[in-house]
Amino acid sequence: MTRNLPTSAARIDEDISALADITEPDRPYTRRAFTPMFLKGREWVAQRFEAAGLTTHIDAAGNLIGSRKGRKPGLGTIMLGSHSDTVPEGGRYDGIAGVSAALEVARALADNGMELDHDLEIIDFLAEEVSIFGVSCVGSRGITGTRPEAWLDRQSEGVTLANAIAEIGGNTAAQITRNDIAAFLELHIEQGPVLESENLDIGVVTAIAGITRIEIVVEGRADHAGTTPMGSRKDALSTAAWIALAVERFATDLAAGEFHFAATVGEFRMEPNAANVVPARVTMLIDARAERRTDMEHFLAQLHDGVAGIAAQTGVTVPEPRVLSDNMPTPCDAGVLASLDVACDATGARHRRMASGAGHDTAWMARITKAAMIFVPCVEGRSHTPEESANAEDIALGAAVLLDAVRRLDKDLQETA
Amino acid sequence: MTRNLPTSAARIDEDISALADITEPDRPYTRRAFTPMFLKGREWVAQRFEAAGLTTHIDAAGNLIGSRKGRKPGLGTIMLGSHSDTVPEGGRYDGIAGVSAALEVARALADNGMELDHDLEIIDFLAEEVSIFGVSCVGSRGITGTRPEAWLDRQSEGVTLANAIAEIGGNTAAQITRNDIAAFLELHIEQGPVLESENLDIGVVTAIAGITRIEIVVEGRADHAGTTPMGSRKDALSTAAWIALAVERFATDLAAGEFHFAATVGEFRMEPNAANVVPARVTMLIDARAERRTDMEHFLAQLHDGVAGIAAQTGVTVPEPRVLSDNMPTPCDAGVLASLDVACDATGARHRRMASGAGHDTAWMARITKAAMIFVPCVEGRSHTPEESANAEDIALGAAVLLDAVRRLDKDLQETA
Repeated sequence: MTRNLPTSAARIDEDISALADITEPDRPYTRRAFTPMFLKGREWVAQRFEAAGLTTHIDAAGNLIGSRKGRKPGLGTIMLGSHSDTVPEGGRYDGIAGVSAALEVARALADNGMELDHDLEIIDFLAEEVSIFGVSCVGSRGITGTRPEAWLDRQSEGVTLANAIAEIGGNTAAQITRNDIAAFLELHIEQGPVLESENLDIGVVTAIAGITRIEIVVEGRADHAGTTPMGSRKDALSTAAWIALAVERFATDLAAGEFHFAATVGEFRMEPNAANVVPARVTMLIDARAERRTDMEHFLAQLHDGVAGIAAQTGVTVPEPRVLSDNMPTPCDAGVLASLDVACDATGARHRRMASGAGHDTAWMARITKAAMIFVPCVEGRSHTPEESANAEDIALGAAVLLDAVRRLDKDLQETA
Repeated sequence: MTRNLPTSAARIDEDISALADITEPDRPYTRRAFTPMFLKGREWVAQRFEAAGLTTHIDAAGNLIGSRKGRKPGLGTIMLGSHSDTVPEGGRYDGIAGVSAALEVARALADNGMELDHDLEIIDFLAEEVSIFGVSCVGSRGITGTRPEAWLDRQSEGVTLANAIAEIGGNTAAQITRNDIAAFLELHIEQGPVLESENLDIGVVTAIAGITRIEIVVEGRADHAGTTPMGSRKDALSTAAWIALAVERFATDLAAGEFHFAATVGEFRMEPNAANVVPARVTMLIDARAERRTDMEHFLAQLHDGVAGIAAQTGVTVPEPRVLSDNMPTPCDAGVLASLDVACDATGARHRRMASGAGHDTAWMARITKAAMIFVPCVEGRSHTPEESANAEDIALGAAVLLDAVRRLDKDLQETA
């Protein structure tokens, strides 16, 4: 479909291609936060912000911000953005698509001489990905009062995180929980296959799923694989296999409902892992993600009972599953979601509501403002790999949706304020 | 039950305790072939052989042999024995019980002034366990013409196996396939739980199981664990779990028959093994052991079809299982087995026939002579661990069975010759 959009796929393609060229040369696409290549990328992003008529600065948390004033001082800020850092050997679109789309909103406003009542900020969050300091969402946690004090002492190659933030222009001595943000919007590639497979343009993200990590240890017995009769074994692997299949079944049943749910046995370690020894122990790490907390609670209860039932059946000991970490889901703002639905329809974008199974800066921004995000399709759902791919036309359409939503929110937020 | 045996549990206990003391001090019980501790153990064994009136020598293959002449030259040799080397941090009984029981037969013959028509040899085979050269059954393969020429060039700490054999008194230049052995008998701990659980004294070993090793690779797809819907995954782990359970089921069904069968997924490697990534690949190594070749063939056919069926069901690619190694079962000699049954009855030992799921020197000796072996119980089937344990009374009873069988064979072999 050819649309007459106020946003430009060509400019977005230019942004993304230019940033793709700013990579560690021997492992594209790598621009990890705090590294020289990241700073080079940011310098280029700042120039693009300025070329769009934005005033740039690095905030105290180390985020790059391009801003323009609104017509009505005191209404607060509508903020748009994502992140320009990558994982090692990552893709060209994760984060970058969102920074470029946000910038494109600013460019389209300028092109068309459109003014907003609210101040507008385009943000490149610092270190959304797990950084060289071992922590992620450093910038969005920094401006939402959720960055643990202890993180600042973390070191990478002899430098503390506090000093690294200072070196890129931040100031960790200053407390900067923002209280002026009227709304926050983020565009991101889906990192999943749903939009592509359903031939849709936009996913309106209802919630960032909560992530719960659970460890299960199966305690079998190491016996001689040749001499121990089949009926006399306590084989940790076969009990673990039943558990892995139960995890898949419980998750598939929950995912059949209206709300996003997924569970994965991502880590699986067997001991002694020797050809001629009956497996003595298996340690499994389950990653479970739920849009609704009640689903996660249901899953944990099913897992508890399921594991006990399997252990009773096989006669192999399995201590109670241990929850290692447990984060709540973050619902997006209902009002902003409604604006995004309307914006999709107005822009002619085929859309659906869906949850984000992955974490995003939006989850932190939701702590301090009305926040929501949209997804655009990516090829085969692939992400965090050089093969990650998305279409500049799709991103431009997403940017047009953002633009429309921003203009609506610019009005609506004044009425509801 | 107190029996009036011609063999002495006290002497056997003395042998085993003395050898247990000859261990690498910081990791009992370790006396690996070719190491100084092994040579110290052998020196002690040779003294015990000589104290029993045996003439000792190291043969060209590096085996320690204690011999006494029979009354009728030219009848050949009845050989008894096992091995005195251990795995690292192994047990006190694996191999050693068999050397001590064989020696006890010689001592009992001497005590009672019993002469044999055949020559008698008590043998301590060189390196039955996987040695520092990475190969096992070095001594029994050496005297049965089955030691690969290429093994001699293997190195450990700059020394070749050929030189190591020469250093302990062997001579690899001399070809020494023995053709004078009329029968061979080995006593060994069961290394499994059957005799203990059935409250039996002796297992008369019908065959050494064949061992087949099979590799299966499950080729799934690495997807984001948070964003990829349950129905859109190619999870290598869940397909591998179905396969592991099928292996267990096929083996359990085969083991329900009259003949020994066992299969174990001993090695299981998952990639990328990262918490938030759907498992992309699992590599499994199956160790299968069969007393009857037809059972192994049946298992391989079932595995082939089963894996294809599971792959079709889950939609995950699984190339055909790959047989990495495939050794035939070795039946023990029917005539010698009959003599052992009679000897058990004559000695008052409660016995059953059973296969050996583990490999033994007997499997190689069966290539050149009438060979068979007996098992004695061990605690909980444990072996290759310091907790390995057996009862000197049980070993003495086993030695009495050997003694009785040797005296019968000494006659019977002349009739059937």
